[in-house]
Amino acid sequence: MQQQAAEWQPVAVERPEAQGRFVLVCEHASNDFPAPWGDLGLTEAQRTAHIAWDPGALGLARALSSALDAPLVRATASRLIYDLNRPPHAAGAMPARSEIHEIPGNQAVPAAQRLARTEALYLPFHDALRALLARRLALGLAPVVVTIHSFTPLWFGQPRAVELGVIHDADPGLATALVEEARGGLDLDTHLNDPYSAADGVTHTLALQATPLGLPNVMIELRNDLIESPAQQQAMAGRLAPLLTAALARIETREAA
Amino acid sequence: MQQQAAEWQPVAVERPEAQGRFVLVCEHASNDFPAPWGDLGLTEAQRTAHIAWDPGALGLARALSSALDAPLVRATASRLIYDLNRPPHAAGAMPARSEIHEIPGNQAVPAAQRLARTEALYLPFHDALRALLARRLALGLAPVVVTIHSFTPLWFGQPRAVELGVIHDADPGLATALVEEARGGLDLDTHLNDPYSAADGVTHTLALQATPLGLPNVMIELRNDLIESPAQQQAMAGRLAPLLTAALARIETREAA
Repeated sequence: MQQQAAEWQPVAVERPEAQGRFVLVCEHASNDFPAPWGDLGLTEAQRTAHIAWDPGALGLARALSSALDAPLVRATASRLIYDLNRPPHAAGAMPARSEIHEIPGNQAVPAAQRLARTEALYLPFHDALRALLARRLALGLAPVVVTIHSFTPLWFGQPRAVELGVIHDADPGLATALVEEARGGLDLDTHLNDPYSAADGVTHTLALQATPLGLPNVMIELRNDLIESPAQQQAMAGRLAPLLTAALARIETREAA
Repeated sequence: MQQQAAEWQPVAVERPEAQGRFVLVCEHASNDFPAPWGDLGLTEAQRTAHIAWDPGALGLARALSSALDAPLVRATASRLIYDLNRPPHAAGAMPARSEIHEIPGNQAVPAAQRLARTEALYLPFHDALRALLARRLALGLAPVVVTIHSFTPLWFGQPRAVELGVIHDADPGLATALVEEARGGLDLDTHLNDPYSAADGVTHTLALQATPLGLPNVMIELRNDLIESPAQQQAMAGRLAPLLTAALARIETREAA
């Protein structure tokens, strides 16, 4: 009896009462195509590919949420319906094309439909994240925003060497500290602002939620072949969590000095 | 039968369907002290003074809203309960002291009370403003954020010469253009980033709502003796509205060149 439609919510907050400093965000957690939008005319293969979501990112984010005692704010619909890491006026919020794929349901989206998706997806997601951060600030906690993403091993047919990408918005502090920690203690090819950077418009969530409040923040991108299975996700979280904690301690020690 | 309490809302949006480019914000519009907070132990003289609100700002903002065909998002409670132009972790969000006045109800505000005020006032106000801006962006409009404030002729007993203060956040474009227009066409002592500037923490609304979306924005401060009466407010709006329009045209002509 339309059980799924009745239960769908535009955002999910897992472990909202977790007491750690970190707040995790996974804007591309889902490849669901809920009503009223449906599959946008995509094939099943397209709906399971990277264009629809960040494969492995949700499993990694959940494992990090457990390891860091961190809340997790995650998407519940495909980024092809609305990319929550883009503002409403960005073409990429409802992309007509992604990599080599035309998105049939996103061709010449009428203004009323852009408005409807913005109200249904973008606003509730970011309101929920903002409320979670504001509550922690009011209580005297000092949240740290970390967004969790994945990228493809191949990009237009070219292999990517980078395994871990660490990306910053206006404040490079936590990102550069995390790269230093990763290069010291992690056997992964780690790059700063690669394979994407703020210039590609990928730091919208950080710019919207962390930068105005002066919160330490970083975007983490894992090459998705490294986090395919739950076991890989768990293992990667076990490697990344202490580095995130050490990177935060590093910048706060610097600030205190 | 508790009519006032039942009707009070934490934010008011006037003329939400107005079609102009400008979106006006008046965070310090109100010196109401609604339940459950009440008067915070202040005298009537204190509750009508500048410490409680920006006298004249709402009248000016409404006259500008009419002149510019602009929506107006305004506060409905005193800034002494929650200063909507401050984030939840700022001491000034619920100030223990303002100028020479102790605020009895704001002494050692417990964390649960900071949380309650944040949820009751800060989040709904900024969610409403953000939704209004996001809807316009989704519809292909290009909003311009202008916050309207007033300041006292005397500050700790010293007279202030500045009559019009024009303040910017990260992007100085609209503010500097407005100062240029004002100095060319307005007989007011006009200063950039005076009597306050971003360094005083007064651009939180701009930093939160306009800067992350790349929207042109400016904070306007009028010396409150110039906008005491409705006639003065109307006259001032009639002088400022064409300057704001000209300043916007100036930066957009520059960008197009």
